Amino acid sequence: MALIVQKFGGTSVGSIERIQAVADRVIASRAAGHEVVVVVSAMSGETDRLLRLAKEIDPHPHPRELDALLSTGEQVTIALLAMALQHKGQSAVSLTGAQVPIETDTAHNKARIERIDGTRLRSALAAGQVVIVAGFQGVTASGDITTLGRGGSDTTAVALAAALQADECAIYTDVDGIYTTDPRIESRARRLDRITYEEMLEMASLGAKVLQTRSVEFAMNYRVPVRVLSSFTDGPGTLVTSEENNMEAPRVSGIAFSRNEAKITVVAVPDRPGIAHAILGPVSAANINVDVILQNVSEDGKTDFTFTVERNDFDRALQILRGVAAELGAADVRGDTGIVKVSVVGVGMRSHAGIAASMFETLAKENINIQMISTSEIKISVVIAEKYLELAVRALHAAFGLDEVGS
Amino acid sequence: MALIVQKFGGTSVGSIERIQAVADRVIASRAAGHEVVVVVSAMSGETDRLLRLAKEIDPHPHPRELDALLSTGEQVTIALLAMALQHKGQSAVSLTGAQVPIETDTAHNKARIERIDGTRLRSALAAGQVVIVAGFQGVTASGDITTLGRGGSDTTAVALAAALQADECAIYTDVDGIYTTDPRIESRARRLDRITYEEMLEMASLGAKVLQTRSVEFAMNYRVPVRVLSSFTDGPGTLVTSEENNMEAPRVSGIAFSRNEAKITVVAVPDRPGIAHAILGPVSAANINVDVILQNVSEDGKTDFTFTVERNDFDRALQILRGVAAELGAADVRGDTGIVKVSVVGVGMRSHAGIAASMFETLAKENINIQMISTSEIKISVVIAEKYLELAVRALHAAFGLDEVGS
Repeated sequence: MALIVQKFGGTSVGSIERIQAVADRVIASRAAGHEVVVVVSAMSGETDRLLRLAKEIDPHPHPRELDALLSTGEQVTIALLAMALQHKGQSAVSLTGAQVPIETDTAHNKARIERIDGTRLRSALAAGQVVIVAGFQGVTASGDITTLGRGGSDTTAVALAAALQADECAIYTDVDGIYTTDPRIESRARRLDRITYEEMLEMASLGAKVLQTRSVEFAMNYRVPVRVLSSFTDGPGTLVTSEENNMEAPRVSGIAFSRNEAKITVVAVPDRPGIAHAILGPVSAANINVDVILQNVSEDGKTDFTFTVERNDFDRALQILRGVAAELGAADVRGDTGIVKVSVVGVGMRSHAGIAASMFETLAKENINIQMISTSEIKISVVIAEKYLELAVRALHAAFGLDEVGS
Repeated sequence: MALIVQKFGGTSVGSIERIQAVADRVIASRAAGHEVVVVVSAMSGETDRLLRLAKEIDPHPHPRELDALLSTGEQVTIALLAMALQHKGQSAVSLTGAQVPIETDTAHNKARIERIDGTRLRSALAAGQVVIVAGFQGVTASGDITTLGRGGSDTTAVALAAALQADECAIYTDVDGIYTTDPRIESRARRLDRITYEEMLEMASLGAKVLQTRSVEFAMNYRVPVRVLSSFTDGPGTLVTSEENNMEAPRVSGIAFSRNEAKITVVAVPDRPGIAHAILGPVSAANINVDVILQNVSEDGKTDFTFTVERNDFDRALQILRGVAAELGAADVRGDTGIVKVSVVGVGMRSHAGIAASMFETLAKENINIQMISTSEIKISVVIAEKYLELAVRALHAAFGLDEVGS
């Protein structure tokens, strides 16, 4: 007998019919002998409906009251799912974030979980009940309702699994697992049986659509095994877990990419100590994230300084940089939004040399020019022109042996 | 400076526009120097929408989960009203029943309030905040959400007024007060400035549409002055209060009536001790309320036994009585659903003789046959044929001087 936390998102509970299907799935897990805690989101569309009501009153609604409003969405789902289970003969009880309680800090609309008291959950489980917990919400020490920010139901599920030392946290989504790359770009992409937390974080460009980054960090910190599964089809999904269980890992697990990139170059800036801070300080002060950074070798006391930002921050960053460049005596500031980032990800890199060389060779064979390079322990990223994205992803997917066997 | 509890029903908060209007009304009360606690219902239609979702799953939804579901309706309203007040510059805070807390027993779907802790309310009021409380809901000692049954928001408002020793509990509705009789039947009906709790209870046939009986009982027990007002027009409304303040009361305050009546007669039943219990015991065991009762003078050891029940209980009561009558050796059981009850109500009756005589004389003049009579300290009721309802109400309204002056 295992203790499993199962999380179902808004689409999976989007209608009474789907709630009934979730109830059946939960009952099947009980029948297999497991104890089950279920975390659910609001029915799809409900959070948006409530948000529209609030914005009719105030474009920037009072944060505490917005949380009181939005938290009703999940409360509706937990009650309906509990009814469905009871009606099918499975004893069940619904708990709001405050009823668990899931204690958070007071940062309304983006609260962080501080403490989960598992007493009530454990006694309900011991009594043979399925416990259904409202995702995305918590309560402050003084009893105010908070929300964890959108998508926070994944975090609720992982946090509950950690607090209860559950055997597994199953995240039911609209995809059947994590793939070696986006199947819309490479039809030979394979579902991975396992992936490490670190890889999952690096695969953000794939993973973000499936798992909230924050919930993966949480799972990694508390070593909670997370399984990504489809709520609509059966299958083993992908187990996100720690490296120890993954000794036979291939060198490369997947090819990630991001289109949300733009590049800015400050041309011929005088090369003196502190230049990087002089350029990037004002950018980061404007709350713009800088990703890949490249400083050319100095020539005649001048250097070119290049970095990438998210594409939707590009205009703002460029404006800031024009001011900075003038002050620093740079010759020019140039921008380019026609770039993408492609990454090779794999914990196997740690023990395998030559991954970077293989990557560069593969891209060279396809005549793809590499504009910037960035490496981490388990990832190599390159910035290339956007038009090469699909070609690069497919070539790397094949070169690192990720193609589906037999396709 | 007074402390006022204001209650707004579902129609009064049925749209964002109306919620804004309620906010303006609350701000006007604050501007007049009052401390304000607001109790609101779910937006009109919302409770029915949630109930439909539940019934799609189970025609008899699990009571605890139904309460968790339905309580979200009021939670949405309190959050939206708090946002509206904040946006208009009035500091405000929303509280669910659990957050107040309003402690109830564990009778889900029809819970009774046991205790209200006013600490949080008082400190919010002291900080200059308007406090907005979700009506119709409470919480058990073990943290489960309960509801007071439909219309329970009136009870919440009166209970809060009692707990806070408020100066007045203002119930905003879609009528502008309590009338001497139903204006749809007698256009000369007058709005009453004051009415006693006892009269309000006796006027149930008028009052039930305006105030929940239970909330009136609560107000009477705790001597909470209740004012019935329109949320859509200005005016003083009707003050429901205790008799001490009402020495100048007229003999009769209003003419009440009920169409929800049916009459059953057990004919020629042997007249022996215990006969009333033999007949009514099985009826009351079936949870059917008996109202007016009449036992004829005995003739040849036989008597006719007649009583009224609510019209929707008639078929069930008749079926029970046929069995009972056979056992008791009665000649027959006869039923009649074509009857109504008309009542003259007024605390002034206590000190004025001859009200009954005037009532009977008035009805005789109109050739209306009285079938049954029932009296209490402040009410005289007669059962008559339904076809005479309007005629009787208008004749009595005029006879007791209730007609609007000048109409």
